[in-house]
Amino acid sequence: MTDYMPWRDDEPLAQESVSLEAAPPPDWPAPGSPDIVIARAVTPRPIAEVAARLGIEASQLLPFGHDKAKLPHAFTDGLAERSRGKLVLVTAITPTPAGEGKTTTTVGLGDGLTRLGHRAAICLREPSLGPCFGMKGGAAGGGRSQVIPMEDINLHFTGDFHAITSAHNLLAALIDNHLHWGNELNLDPERITWKRAMDMNDRALRHLTVGQGGQGVPRSDGFDITAASEIMAILCLARDLADLQRRLGEIVVARTRDGAPVLARDLKADGAMAALLKQALAPNLVQTLEHTPAFVHGGPFANIAHGCNSVMATRSALALADVVVTEAGFGADLGAEKFFNIKCRQAGLAPSAVVVVATLRALKMHGGVAREALGKPDPEAVRRGAANLARHVENLRGFGVPLMVAVNQFDQDSAEEHAVLREACDALGVEMAVSSHWRDGSAGSEALAERVAALLDAPAPEPTLTYADDAGLVDKVRAIATRLYGASDISLKDRARRQLEEYEALGYGHLPVCIAKTQYSFAADPEMNGLATGHVLPIREAELAAGAGFVVVLCGAIMRMPGMPRRPASAGMRLDEAGEIEGLS
Amino acid sequence: MTDYMPWRDDEPLAQESVSLEAAPPPDWPAPGSPDIVIARAVTPRPIAEVAARLGIEASQLLPFGHDKAKLPHAFTDGLAERSRGKLVLVTAITPTPAGEGKTTTTVGLGDGLTRLGHRAAICLREPSLGPCFGMKGGAAGGGRSQVIPMEDINLHFTGDFHAITSAHNLLAALIDNHLHWGNELNLDPERITWKRAMDMNDRALRHLTVGQGGQGVPRSDGFDITAASEIMAILCLARDLADLQRRLGEIVVARTRDGAPVLARDLKADGAMAALLKQALAPNLVQTLEHTPAFVHGGPFANIAHGCNSVMATRSALALADVVVTEAGFGADLGAEKFFNIKCRQAGLAPSAVVVVATLRALKMHGGVAREALGKPDPEAVRRGAANLARHVENLRGFGVPLMVAVNQFDQDSAEEHAVLREACDALGVEMAVSSHWRDGSAGSEALAERVAALLDAPAPEPTLTYADDAGLVDKVRAIATRLYGASDISLKDRARRQLEEYEALGYGHLPVCIAKTQYSFAADPEMNGLATGHVLPIREAELAAGAGFVVVLCGAIMRMPGMPRRPASAGMRLDEAGEIEGLS
Repeated sequence: MTDYMPWRDDEPLAQESVSLEAAPPPDWPAPGSPDIVIARAVTPRPIAEVAARLGIEASQLLPFGHDKAKLPHAFTDGLAERSRGKLVLVTAITPTPAGEGKTTTTVGLGDGLTRLGHRAAICLREPSLGPCFGMKGGAAGGGRSQVIPMEDINLHFTGDFHAITSAHNLLAALIDNHLHWGNELNLDPERITWKRAMDMNDRALRHLTVGQGGQGVPRSDGFDITAASEIMAILCLARDLADLQRRLGEIVVARTRDGAPVLARDLKADGAMAALLKQALAPNLVQTLEHTPAFVHGGPFANIAHGCNSVMATRSALALADVVVTEAGFGADLGAEKFFNIKCRQAGLAPSAVVVVATLRALKMHGGVAREALGKPDPEAVRRGAANLARHVENLRGFGVPLMVAVNQFDQDSAEEHAVLREACDALGVEMAVSSHWRDGSAGSEALAERVAALLDAPAPEPTLTYADDAGLVDKVRAIATRLYGASDISLKDRARRQLEEYEALGYGHLPVCIAKTQYSFAADPEMNGLATGHVLPIREAELAAGAGFVVVLCGAIMRMPGMPRRPASAGMRLDEAGEIEGLS
Repeated sequence: MTDYMPWRDDEPLAQESVSLEAAPPPDWPAPGSPDIVIARAVTPRPIAEVAARLGIEASQLLPFGHDKAKLPHAFTDGLAERSRGKLVLVTAITPTPAGEGKTTTTVGLGDGLTRLGHRAAICLREPSLGPCFGMKGGAAGGGRSQVIPMEDINLHFTGDFHAITSAHNLLAALIDNHLHWGNELNLDPERITWKRAMDMNDRALRHLTVGQGGQGVPRSDGFDITAASEIMAILCLARDLADLQRRLGEIVVARTRDGAPVLARDLKADGAMAALLKQALAPNLVQTLEHTPAFVHGGPFANIAHGCNSVMATRSALALADVVVTEAGFGADLGAEKFFNIKCRQAGLAPSAVVVVATLRALKMHGGVAREALGKPDPEAVRRGAANLARHVENLRGFGVPLMVAVNQFDQDSAEEHAVLREACDALGVEMAVSSHWRDGSAGSEALAERVAALLDAPAPEPTLTYADDAGLVDKVRAIATRLYGASDISLKDRARRQLEEYEALGYGHLPVCIAKTQYSFAADPEMNGLATGHVLPIREAELAAGAGFVVVLCGAIMRMPGMPRRPASAGMRLDEAGEIEGLS
């Protein structure tokens, strides 16, 4: 396995990496305790100790409290030329309400690799406040596979989302201000494509009319959630500060009355936006419950955005660790597809292995079992549901990277169900490992980590992307729909077709596409779960993200600003007598 | 002067205070160099060293980078019972485009007191992004009297504004979500008073219609700038986390169709908001260019909000330092009035001295000189303009606190003009000191600091507030207008009268009032500059801020969401080749 530890042959590290025991503390709460109870039972190591595992000196860190830090640009700039570790992508089957545990598995795998003696790091996305207060609560793993400090990470963390929201809304304010002061650039108020952003689930802001009451120029507008902002994508795809500022300038915000694109640069907005984002572009470092270094940076959703953590974090981690485990959001149809076709394409990354996460519970739901009945063993339902896994495995094979299946174990799982799934995996010719990291931490993920490490022995292949840069935009969407979604074709509303034609005419035809689609189905209809086949993917609208370097394609009814459920998660949150946060998990 | 150093008689400090030289480094750039050049020439001391001057141990700090920290709640909770230092309020004449330098004088006075051997600290507000990108650029002092790190403070700092914006908009989202899911509480969509917030100057968001396009319930809405949010006021007035959460619950967001008030608590929003604000409530510590500890925390504007830094910061500083210099925003008619009638009333603070800042340039503008002609000596204009100073001095005398005038010196000031002003001060019976801190740092403010220190010998009097709690709301407004603004009376629009009557009927009549009014005049009309007298103050509208504990009264055309000028300051900002921020000052 020495060939994927390039740092050993590399220039001497600034500091010898410090070995920390990965073993869990003996006084961990019982498995199944609430996540927050488990998290609070662990004392975080000072972040400088965690950084030392990667050869980073304390003085090179920008601390945020005692357990979080950013790697400043002066440090990451120096990493650019270093040799690279091996990259492992964690993705999943189509999500169900039963839960799959992709983040948990990413953390568990990272801890398992650390336990085996690898210099491992993980890369995750930052959670958004929207889902945190809306549907799902926090997003920092669970059980004994969490990143900490959980509360900080779930709330404001190091402020990156807020910086993105501010930069986004500064640009929006400058557009309306330009209209107000005489519209020198001759913007068509009906063709302003730059909306506003907020890190909140707020359906009332989807469609609104601004500039009313004699204040500014009235026009239709709307808010997207920050996780779907082009600025988020730019932050996640930029290689350094100069690239960030360049990309910000290239954002297309509107058309003139003559139809010419108006760039953020034309409004002199790029420099101030870059100033707002300077610190946010620096990767964040935290730790898992077992003190494995965790880069948690950038947070585009995988349904309505490109779903991957920042290139800055991934590249930094690859320069510092020998194995880097990262995840892409939702199912492999969304997250992994975008990871390859957008992130790897732009950043030149070549993952060495892909891990597809499944749970028996989720497969049973795909096999037709109701959520209430999931506690009962049902091997036949697992067999039926494995068809969903099979589709994802076949799709992922197309990228040409070694892959395996990780079963994220739940206490109710039966041996018979596992056996059925193993049969299915054998039939697919794909390896499968069961991992109980949620219950046992790295002690439970060791077997998975061993199997993943074995996959890394081979040199990383160049990934096979789904389409070439020079294919037409419509053909790119069709390639994804027919090859990965099982669709027979795509259908475009006139509006979408005109938009894609315009982008090509303007010289943006070489960009990859970023599909916005429900995560609950291979199709655009969330009700069409299981194994949608032969459907026609309906394309409603497109959005040019010239700074990010892709074209967003909106399918079906997907919205880029979520709403909250009838009983929002926020209602259960509170500060207790001691000032501790209750109800966030 | 020993009687205002109560810490000397207090319990032993956790750590002996560490004495640092206040003298400026010998290699300071020439006076008159750009602020950023001067700021970058100084190496910030590690924040732990700055904190040590106040007896704070490094382990008690929550660091943000190497030069910023928060004082966590575990630490500030322990300060509550400690004896107090002396409090000095810095306020100013009516602002003009010529600049007065209130922040600069606060910094200079703090450094001057440090130079004299006092254990001094300053308390300032945090800047807002709105003016930073709009009209005025940064707000961290200037010349050799600045707080650093200037760029961080002017941009996201420790994230407090963003936390406030998020908490504000979470509550707004929960309201619209409640309407969407059936409106169980029977809210009247026409009587929702809780708007949305953004830390940006964006006039297009003043008036808008949300919930359009079939997404939610359509209704009129608007955004206020975060600095005017009730959450900002709550953060600045709360004594601790429990008080914060209680106040958040008491926010009145709407009326039911039966006219009953609906509280944030009814929507179960208070706990999640408190969780979002927990860290933001902890005071921020930074330093001046001469390393005097500076608490920079909370940032309500003084025209459209109550204009004072947080009670948490002021009380913490008073528990740790022997002299605390703080400022209130804009002219004394706004900032100082609210400092006494809102902040001191609620927090039980009793300042020992007030310093009124004036510049010859500004007095000349008040005396009728055009901005272009300010470079020329004009003693007669100074004499005429001194009437503005006189009105503020008379007003401030009413609060019963010893006061003096600080002249913030500019290079073009003439001795003859100073003499004229000194005459005017003699006639008023008020002491005057000229201070060249902008040019010379503490070497220039030593004389001012000596005079201020002398005022502190006497025990702090109980301040005389402008009105009693039990006066009617209209009478409270009238008292301010007639006694401080020189108005003959007030006039209320029907809407405002009905609102104030309703607040009294609902049991909120005991609250103080927070007047929103232009800062450019004693009147509500910004053009009526100089010495408005006999005018009638027009009251347009009122807003109940039950959580903050005051009633906002909007005068004339004042807006709680500013707009940007034709040429926004943002246009000049940029990252240079080295990634440094240019154009922010």
